[in-house]
Amino acid sequence: MNIDVINLKQKASLVKDLHQYKLIAQMNNYNFTLIKAKRVMGWHSHPETDEVFIVVEGKMKIELRDKMLELAEGEMVVIPKGIEHRPVCEEEVCCLLIEPSGTLNTDNTGGAIQSEIEWI
Amino acid sequence: MNIDVINLKQKASLVKDLHQYKLIAQMNNYNFTLIKAKRVMGWHSHPETDEVFIVVEGKMKIELRDKMLELAEGEMVVIPKGIEHRPVCEEEVCCLLIEPSGTLNTDNTGGAIQSEIEWI
Repeated sequence: MNIDVINLKQKASLVKDLHQYKLIAQMNNYNFTLIKAKRVMGWHSHPETDEVFIVVEGKMKIELRDKMLELAEGEMVVIPKGIEHRPVCEEEVCCLLIEPSGTLNTDNTGGAIQSEIEWI
Repeated sequence: MNIDVINLKQKASLVKDLHQYKLIAQMNNYNFTLIKAKRVMGWHSHPETDEVFIVVEGKMKIELRDKMLELAEGEMVVIPKGIEHRPVCEEEVCCLLIEPSGTLNTDNTGGAIQSEIEWI
């Protein structure tokens, strides 16, 4: 069993393409994935699970129906299950996501599934 | 429902005492706790769950039976369930722990339970 230190910024430097989820760690049945993004995603919610965002580099917003969250490097938020949200990445951001390995990435009807993601 | 941005270093600045677990977030049944530590803990393992350490400030080591992990700020490690480990904090470190809310903190026979931890 390989137990190694993971440097978040070093892993971020390995992510070359935008909007590709990359797996960096697993804890029980949870995936820790990095994504670099520069786009406004669609409104969606995850009916079965909370979702954690931790900003590793850059900054981003997450729009809720009643307010806008602004996250900078070193900041995190938990989006509770069932809560509609929309990630708004106006500039390039690298974000660490924590969610169960079966969670759909983008919305509830399509996109890559967290269990099929490439390791970096 | 309160959904707010959590700044990890700002939360760390609120932790005044060493060796007191403080809750900063929950995702499903998982606790995100901060602890400031300066001590060598005892060898222990968690038979039921993996455990995540993310260093927020300072640096620390985690000794395994076959090697020593050295973690600096912005680095993380997953200790798989059942693996004996010993956190070695030679200088003050602030660490974010992610583990199920029922996990015993210190070892498998005593110490505070993650479900009884104060929020900051």
